[in-house]
Amino acid sequence: MAGRPDDTGEAGRRAGLRAGTARRTDAGRGGRPRDTALDERILRETFTLLTEVGLHGLRIDAVAARAGVPKSTIYRRWPSLAELAVDAVDAALGPREFPAGKDPLADLARIIVHTWRLLMRPPLTTALPGLGMELAGHPRAAAAYRERVIAPLRDGAIAAVARAVDTGAWNGPDPVTSVDMLVGTFLYRLTYLGQTPDLDEVFRVAELIAGRALPGPDVA
Amino acid sequence: MAGRPDDTGEAGRRAGLRAGTARRTDAGRGGRPRDTALDERILRETFTLLTEVGLHGLRIDAVAARAGVPKSTIYRRWPSLAELAVDAVDAALGPREFPAGKDPLADLARIIVHTWRLLMRPPLTTALPGLGMELAGHPRAAAAYRERVIAPLRDGAIAAVARAVDTGAWNGPDPVTSVDMLVGTFLYRLTYLGQTPDLDEVFRVAELIAGRALPGPDVA
Repeated sequence: MAGRPDDTGEAGRRAGLRAGTARRTDAGRGGRPRDTALDERILRETFTLLTEVGLHGLRIDAVAARAGVPKSTIYRRWPSLAELAVDAVDAALGPREFPAGKDPLADLARIIVHTWRLLMRPPLTTALPGLGMELAGHPRAAAAYRERVIAPLRDGAIAAVARAVDTGAWNGPDPVTSVDMLVGTFLYRLTYLGQTPDLDEVFRVAELIAGRALPGPDVA
Repeated sequence: MAGRPDDTGEAGRRAGLRAGTARRTDAGRGGRPRDTALDERILRETFTLLTEVGLHGLRIDAVAARAGVPKSTIYRRWPSLAELAVDAVDAALGPREFPAGKDPLADLARIIVHTWRLLMRPPLTTALPGLGMELAGHPRAAAAYRERVIAPLRDGAIAAVARAVDTGAWNGPDPVTSVDMLVGTFLYRLTYLGQTPDLDEVFRVAELIAGRALPGPDVA
């Protein structure tokens, strides 16, 4: 048993929780079956607390009390509060995978609409950018946040633009720069300027970057 | 005396401190002369504390202890910790005004270089975006932050692009969108992706947005 990857704690546990797909396995540090419902409850309560008090206000006692478990249950599952917070946000965001369709521009439009809707959901609008910022002080958790919260949608958008470049359907900069411009403009206006860009505005900026018309938000 | 604008506290006091130009006046809530050196010391210690503990960790007792003044001295001058924090950042950034020169593209290049250097100065790199984010929860202070910390450089850049548009020297989007794209891409990479864009990269993005070559960083 001890040699199996998902028996070794960290890696297997994290893989199991990736993208909100927490599931019952026979892994876990104590060698006992994981209780998926318990994991989900802890993550849900953690996320609620995060939206209320931010990462700096998150206390293990509060999580334990709200989830109705002893602190040791949480300590066994997550090596730090920051990593618990990343898992909680990952789970709250839900599945974020977009299979490539026939039209890469339509794929991109779908990812834009999905991301915008996620960020416009009230607790996430303020919790998500703030959490990303607070995690900057915790290098390991910040890397986990980038890999698990930011990368799925960002990489999906970059891949869609790359497919559009391949078929000659993109008149803008390289895929990475194009996506960073689009996301950056949106987040800057949302978090620094205190504006709430609507979907039409996001698509206008996307078309400026693409150097062409795009399928509209109704594609999604 | 009571009718003079700079005797009435808030407005006059804030005007006096605007853009780091704190100066001795005969205003002040107690009717006594302002002690500029004292203001500057409080702002400097506040800024140092901010870079160490963030806005959520800022305590009036700590500011008072470090500045060697009673808490009442601080309370008399600033209506809230958040507003003290905005003043402290404003003062730490120093003067940020760029008179329009003959070539608007050279003006823009100078503003880009100046902003980049400010943001790359170690405590500011992490303190500034984090503070902007934390202030989002304090509407009045957030507005002050936007007006006094963000606007001077952002408005300067927008005005330079607008002059370039007027002379037909700009092939990119409207001035506001162009500047938000440039700043947004930079801040997104710096604060969310954990990258530290060098000046060449910032200029490459600026040229992609402008749709043309720009005077290089050495213009400044």
